[in-house]
Amino acid sequence: DQGPKVASTALEIDGQQVQLAGMAKGAGMIGPNMATMLAVVMTDATVGAEDLQVALGRAIEQSFNCISVEGHTSTNDTVLLLASGASGGSTLSGEALEQFCQALDSVCVELAKQIPADGEGSSHLITIDVQGASSREEARQIAQTIANSNLVKAGVAGADPNWGRIISAVGYAGVEIDPDQVRVAINGVDLYQQGSPLRFDVAQVSASIADNVDTSIVVELNSGTAAARFWTSDLTADYVRFNSEFHT
Amino acid sequence: DQGPKVASTALEIDGQQVQLAGMAKGAGMIGPNMATMLAVVMTDATVGAEDLQVALGRAIEQSFNCISVEGHTSTNDTVLLLASGASGGSTLSGEALEQFCQALDSVCVELAKQIPADGEGSSHLITIDVQGASSREEARQIAQTIANSNLVKAGVAGADPNWGRIISAVGYAGVEIDPDQVRVAINGVDLYQQGSPLRFDVAQVSASIADNVDTSIVVELNSGTAAARFWTSDLTADYVRFNSEFHT
Repeated sequence: DQGPKVASTALEIDGQQVQLAGMAKGAGMIGPNMATMLAVVMTDATVGAEDLQVALGRAIEQSFNCISVEGHTSTNDTVLLLASGASGGSTLSGEALEQFCQALDSVCVELAKQIPADGEGSSHLITIDVQGASSREEARQIAQTIANSNLVKAGVAGADPNWGRIISAVGYAGVEIDPDQVRVAINGVDLYQQGSPLRFDVAQVSASIADNVDTSIVVELNSGTAAARFWTSDLTADYVRFNSEFHT
Repeated sequence: DQGPKVASTALEIDGQQVQLAGMAKGAGMIGPNMATMLAVVMTDATVGAEDLQVALGRAIEQSFNCISVEGHTSTNDTVLLLASGASGGSTLSGEALEQFCQALDSVCVELAKQIPADGEGSSHLITIDVQGASSREEARQIAQTIANSNLVKAGVAGADPNWGRIISAVGYAGVEIDPDQVRVAINGVDLYQQGSPLRFDVAQVSASIADNVDTSIVVELNSGTAAARFWTSDLTADYVRFNSEFHT
């Protein structure tokens, strides 16, 4: 890790000031399935143990389980959520609990993104949005397949607006799609639509990748209303160097 | 491709001299599921069209569908089998057909291996044998997961006898295994057995990786009799450079 990874928020729930703060570590062997990644989130909210477990499960599903560096799942990813109740007030339930859950979701996302952003050798944080899917599970499956494609990741490292690598990853994700309905955009510029590449300013899109740490890939499937977001590192020669240095 | 990829064999079946010859291309975007890879196998054997299709399906399952460079399935992998019947004799069936199938299997394996051996930027051909599995499908699933691990592949490029990366890839392959029964060997040297790393001469195993183009990884699961073999490239900084070079 190149530095600390922290995220926090404070909000008022039911008249109580509630704080949420978290920290995480990890930069390689990242393809979490709650297996080298380690994160702790703390709060002074008063929440029941079962509600905390459910809230954390939901938050992880759309944060820590939606990141990768190289997709190699570690044997010991861990996220802990600790609640002290020091904020006072009665145990959260109903609408108040939902407010807490939303705050937890955003702290977990904030924290999780910092891991691929600090991915070994990484020069870009890639955010992949798959939209218009039949189910969240299918959207996530496609987003994860794009995230784990070395060709897509090496392309971003080289500022190559390569829609073909993205489209082909969508195609082998194992989800039934209608290729003629798919739209692909990088950094807000449409590159591919209705089965055909679009004319676009290649130099401008390439420059937008090269000039920014964040790259956005959007895939619109136009076959439903479900969506998923996944974050990954790009793939650089430095990643390979780092992971192949070996001295006996 | 750095050069031509060819394989051939000649055998006598039922008193007839039969020849089999094939050629292939491909070095990147290789994770075949009969989707940039292209191969043609020709024979002068007299074989029926349906038997040819079945024979090719069987041969591909243990050859072209068991290789990867980076695991990115292409949109247009193709293997063609052409039989002219010019060897003469009656259409092969029974034992004679089985002899033909075995020859076809070995030509396809010979040809398929040449693709990851010539993988973009590759310095090693890695052969992964998963043995003692409950089913061939499970053995293949584990072998493919190891083959697609950037950490395993970067480790081989750096001559790192890293059993931990192999074991953890086995663990996230999605197949139920007994970790205490697993044995891992690299280039014929046992590194891990019954849930624990073994003492081994690290410098010697590392040198055996560094000094040879071929690296063998064997994973023995000790939970059945099924096995699968998978071939892949190592992952080098040159692979990344090659796939991130982009000029507008």
